[in-house]
Amino acid sequence: MQFELTDELIEQVEVLVEEKKDKELQKLLKEFHYADIAEILDELNLEEAIYVIKLLDSETTSDILMELDEDNREKVLRNLSAKEIAEEVEELDTDDAADMISELPEERQQEVISNIEDEEHKAEIKELLAYEEGTAGALMAKELVKVYETWTVAGCLRRIRGQAKEVTRVHSIYVVSREEKLVGRLSLKDLIVAKSEKKIGEIAKDNVDFVNVNEDIEEVARLMAKYDLEAIPVIESDDNKVLLGRITIDDIVDVMKEEAERDYQMAAGITGDVDSDDSIFELTKARLPWLFLGLIGGVGAFLIMEGFKGLFVEKAVILFFFTPLIAAMAGNVGVQSSAIIVQGLANDDVRGSVNSRLFKEMLLAALNGFVLAIFLFLFVYLFEGRLDLALAISVSLVAVIIVAGLIGTFVPLFLNKRGIDPAIATGPFITTSNDILGILLYFWIAKLILGI
Amino acid sequence: MQFELTDELIEQVEVLVEEKKDKELQKLLKEFHYADIAEILDELNLEEAIYVIKLLDSETTSDILMELDEDNREKVLRNLSAKEIAEEVEELDTDDAADMISELPEERQQEVISNIEDEEHKAEIKELLAYEEGTAGALMAKELVKVYETWTVAGCLRRIRGQAKEVTRVHSIYVVSREEKLVGRLSLKDLIVAKSEKKIGEIAKDNVDFVNVNEDIEEVARLMAKYDLEAIPVIESDDNKVLLGRITIDDIVDVMKEEAERDYQMAAGITGDVDSDDSIFELTKARLPWLFLGLIGGVGAFLIMEGFKGLFVEKAVILFFFTPLIAAMAGNVGVQSSAIIVQGLANDDVRGSVNSRLFKEMLLAALNGFVLAIFLFLFVYLFEGRLDLALAISVSLVAVIIVAGLIGTFVPLFLNKRGIDPAIATGPFITTSNDILGILLYFWIAKLILGI
Repeated sequence: MQFELTDELIEQVEVLVEEKKDKELQKLLKEFHYADIAEILDELNLEEAIYVIKLLDSETTSDILMELDEDNREKVLRNLSAKEIAEEVEELDTDDAADMISELPEERQQEVISNIEDEEHKAEIKELLAYEEGTAGALMAKELVKVYETWTVAGCLRRIRGQAKEVTRVHSIYVVSREEKLVGRLSLKDLIVAKSEKKIGEIAKDNVDFVNVNEDIEEVARLMAKYDLEAIPVIESDDNKVLLGRITIDDIVDVMKEEAERDYQMAAGITGDVDSDDSIFELTKARLPWLFLGLIGGVGAFLIMEGFKGLFVEKAVILFFFTPLIAAMAGNVGVQSSAIIVQGLANDDVRGSVNSRLFKEMLLAALNGFVLAIFLFLFVYLFEGRLDLALAISVSLVAVIIVAGLIGTFVPLFLNKRGIDPAIATGPFITTSNDILGILLYFWIAKLILGI
Repeated sequence: MQFELTDELIEQVEVLVEEKKDKELQKLLKEFHYADIAEILDELNLEEAIYVIKLLDSETTSDILMELDEDNREKVLRNLSAKEIAEEVEELDTDDAADMISELPEERQQEVISNIEDEEHKAEIKELLAYEEGTAGALMAKELVKVYETWTVAGCLRRIRGQAKEVTRVHSIYVVSREEKLVGRLSLKDLIVAKSEKKIGEIAKDNVDFVNVNEDIEEVARLMAKYDLEAIPVIESDDNKVLLGRITIDDIVDVMKEEAERDYQMAAGITGDVDSDDSIFELTKARLPWLFLGLIGGVGAFLIMEGFKGLFVEKAVILFFFTPLIAAMAGNVGVQSSAIIVQGLANDDVRGSVNSRLFKEMLLAALNGFVLAIFLFLFVYLFEGRLDLALAISVSLVAVIIVAGLIGTFVPLFLNKRGIDPAIATGPFITTSNDILGILLYFWIAKLILGI
């Protein structure tokens, strides 16, 4: 069953498109999953991709469109009429439909919505579009299987045969009161195993997990991962538990992937969720600001060294030759400690007082710094033969490492307390500030020890 | 339903443990999900945690144990007898049971296994333990719902009532031939909707996804995310499709989280999957080797500068003051480009030739470098008033950025081609090598331009 995207396959599709062999093309693509077809289309040029999409039926193409690379989807949609997009939207579940529409320019959104024929689908999509991005409401789907607590098992089985047809996967059956409020849940398994004359209210489990419609999706992801949930119902509010929709684990998997990628890029000094196939302009926009920060840091380091020039160039010019080492160590230690704290915060397992964290980091940095300083001491002493220089450089190294570790620990904790995403504290930000501070500290301590 | 781990709650539990108020403690903890109880226990000391575990029944404690922090689980298990552990294992699904046993020391593993009373469970656990770590076989569970293609819908419903009881969640019903080979799948929904006299073979879907028992779990995760699968059956081999087990999405969610965390830590120069609560010794083991690499790099930078001392100290000592800037920019650019390639490789969307990648990165680096060099040129010229120095420093900056970008792009592609995890190319490794090379290049170019 393994699909492999080969150059031969892409070429085969390109040739069929060029020669307009529609039948053969349809036959070839019918073999593949829509996610695989999307991978093929991502490799074609825009005209070829649009040709294929217009060739296939909208039941398949709507799914393909959702799997396309976001940039490519945007380009393809720009080449479809509002009516054509509305036809794709009709085939999608409400959550995907709302996603696709929300990516369109404002004025096209209205045009597409007004072209949707199914009134219920239209109303549901409009509802989803109204929720703020990043909330449970914006991620949920309206499709779910719902039963009333007063129904019997037999009546219930009969009725959900109808509902289930439009729901791709039945995870849980949600039990609601007459006022549409969530009161419990059932699995299909429970229903099959139960006696047919029982009332739903009697067999439903009442310990049902749920989230509010305004809940942050990263919190929803955390809950679903923690409790191993495959779907979670979304309600209006804690006071008014009206069932509004449900979120499934496949959407959460995507949220988690995006989150991990964003954090990873942030740590590497890249913003804006780019990938290697984006344009040079987009990549520059994502990378240049952080490089500029590094430049500012480098100029800062220059100014510090310039300030110590008079003092050291004559008597201990060698000190200047260790600034890259000091800066690198300060940067590395800072990133290590901030990464551990950022990750702990993301997993919600940083507990205890800030002071005890800082104390632990200090011990750790002191231990690491001491080991490294011994090597550096021996190197400088053997190379230069001056005990005072070797002492000055290695003592500063320990001090710099301790300070860098403390800053790396403190900054993300501080940002988090202020409600700012601590992930920005990793990467270039922490490296740059530690570089400058490290070099400054290094010259101060050296000056003190050498007595210059 | 929101559970919150408060200091008050932890204290309340601690007091109840200390005063041995078993009834009250049981009543309090009964309210919570096992994942929440695990969070509480992670905050208690070992004796308290063991007290609570011995108090609760093994149906709950087995799940709690699986949710505990790995280090804490190890400590707790060390304080339970082989017989007690075997009792916990009896309550777990085969995949969790095998995981728990595999964490024990070799000699205890045998002891625990021989204490398992259910012979079928014991045999299944032994089978799972035999698969290599990191493969589908080691992750899968033996619990699944299986029907033969020759059964009728009615007979099938009757029989799976029995099977389903021991399967926590029914994702798919797998259809097998008389030889136990996977031939298709069904959802419970399909079964309920179908006429009761139909044969399973007639209503089963034959386009069933599956993985081989030796498949790498990261590949399984990629497939399940791509095709939005909630469970995937595991077969013996492509030639012999005997159904061996199934993998569910909740396990994959854990795999994805661990993978993301490992990559993130790697980029920050931390190895060995530590977290902020680990001991100082463990944290040192994870961090010191990378810092040592940084130290070597710094010594390398020192030796280069020492080599250019005679040439520059008299005539252009200012050049030395820009080494931290050059090193920082080389490091930052290198990490940016390698992070994008590493992520692209992980998502399997780095296509096209290596040369075109390198060419694109060269253009990108040249563009970024040029913008940054203008600022640096103006700064040096205004600060020092020497055109030749300003030119030498800013031209080297462009060159260093281009080379760093190329290395950052090439190294992960090269490692990946060699079958080495490209993620090691981010973080300290790329920073350190770029630092040294950048500084060397910088002095060469400066020497050339200044004609010294």
